[in-house]
Amino acid sequence: MDISTYFPIWNKLTPIQQGMLSQAAIHRTIKKGSIVHNGDMDCLGLLLIESGQLRAYILSDEGREVTIYRLFERDICLFSASCMMNSIQFKITIEAEKDSEAWIIPPELYKKTMEESAALSNYTNEIMASRFSDVMWLIEQIMWKSMDKRLASFLLEESTLEGTNILQITHERIANHMGSAREVITRMLRYFQNEGMVKLSRGTVEILEPKQLESLSL
Amino acid sequence: MDISTYFPIWNKLTPIQQGMLSQAAIHRTIKKGSIVHNGDMDCLGLLLIESGQLRAYILSDEGREVTIYRLFERDICLFSASCMMNSIQFKITIEAEKDSEAWIIPPELYKKTMEESAALSNYTNEIMASRFSDVMWLIEQIMWKSMDKRLASFLLEESTLEGTNILQITHERIANHMGSAREVITRMLRYFQNEGMVKLSRGTVEILEPKQLESLSL
Repeated sequence: MDISTYFPIWNKLTPIQQGMLSQAAIHRTIKKGSIVHNGDMDCLGLLLIESGQLRAYILSDEGREVTIYRLFERDICLFSASCMMNSIQFKITIEAEKDSEAWIIPPELYKKTMEESAALSNYTNEIMASRFSDVMWLIEQIMWKSMDKRLASFLLEESTLEGTNILQITHERIANHMGSAREVITRMLRYFQNEGMVKLSRGTVEILEPKQLESLSL
Repeated sequence: MDISTYFPIWNKLTPIQQGMLSQAAIHRTIKKGSIVHNGDMDCLGLLLIESGQLRAYILSDEGREVTIYRLFERDICLFSASCMMNSIQFKITIEAEKDSEAWIIPPELYKKTMEESAALSNYTNEIMASRFSDVMWLIEQIMWKSMDKRLASFLLEESTLEGTNILQITHERIANHMGSAREVITRMLRYFQNEGMVKLSRGTVEILEPKQLESLSL
């Protein structure tokens, strides 16, 4: 496994550029729960996810969170190298949701290579446009979808990601994903339970009627 | 006035690239109220704003709107050339809020030049990152700022843009900017009026106490 497979434009880089990127890339194991990038406090570098799962979220002054997007196997994370671009004027935090493996490319080298290679720069443009699309989707969800629909979607997505109907997740954690308050989530989960769609117990949400949740989420 | 001044990296382009972009650029007058770019229905090209004011917004299935960002003199609009990038997977509508003048660069030529020029591609990256920052700011506003604060900010911003305390704007129009419903805006404006901060009359909102609005908006 090497970093070339992350870049469809790899063979448009010169052998020197390929060599420098490959040599500078550092392999890292990231423990579940650890923060890999913290707002504008650091500029780790470009993250190439080999395995695992991470989430990118924003944090309010009062400590409220909302998940902006998630990173899976084969994804590239640009904003952990936010110092690369002057115009990135927002703070994102990136946390491992599962034990993860990743390659890290130092931001200075990546920036320098982008300045030399139109192919790499255009590919980076595509990565950013793809994240932009995620964020626009999120705005549409927040603006126009009611909280019950969003919660139903979230539970189904979690269930797919975890490969189980019994989710080990607290109401607090769900609220942090959705940018809501714990009380609001608890109230809505109880409503779902009354309707027979889920079963709640300490630290778990069991999905009983995925089809009903799905038709609610539409 | 020519298009070179829009690109700080203009002298990093070859004379041929400079010539092709300059010759292909079309100057256009855009009447207030007209739609220059409509979702994924068209792919006009890169817009270089010479004068005037435009807004980019998204539209729900039910016809509700929310303003994503605005474009002023000297701004470049990328998403009116969304066909340039595969990863732009969202629909934005762009409407002139004032009579505007703009240059339009055809999307195919711009894309081709980006593929040749790392400088142009990196500059385009910066433009996108800057819009990304606008959108992240908007998410923070929507998630964590109450509607009264957002409305106070909006009125003050409009007042600055128009250079007057008497805004010619309907409640419907304000709702469309903020992604809210007309009734909600009307109720809140009446509250502002009761507090002596604004005076409402048919089709206008007059700001009486800008300082009070400002302290509310924080």
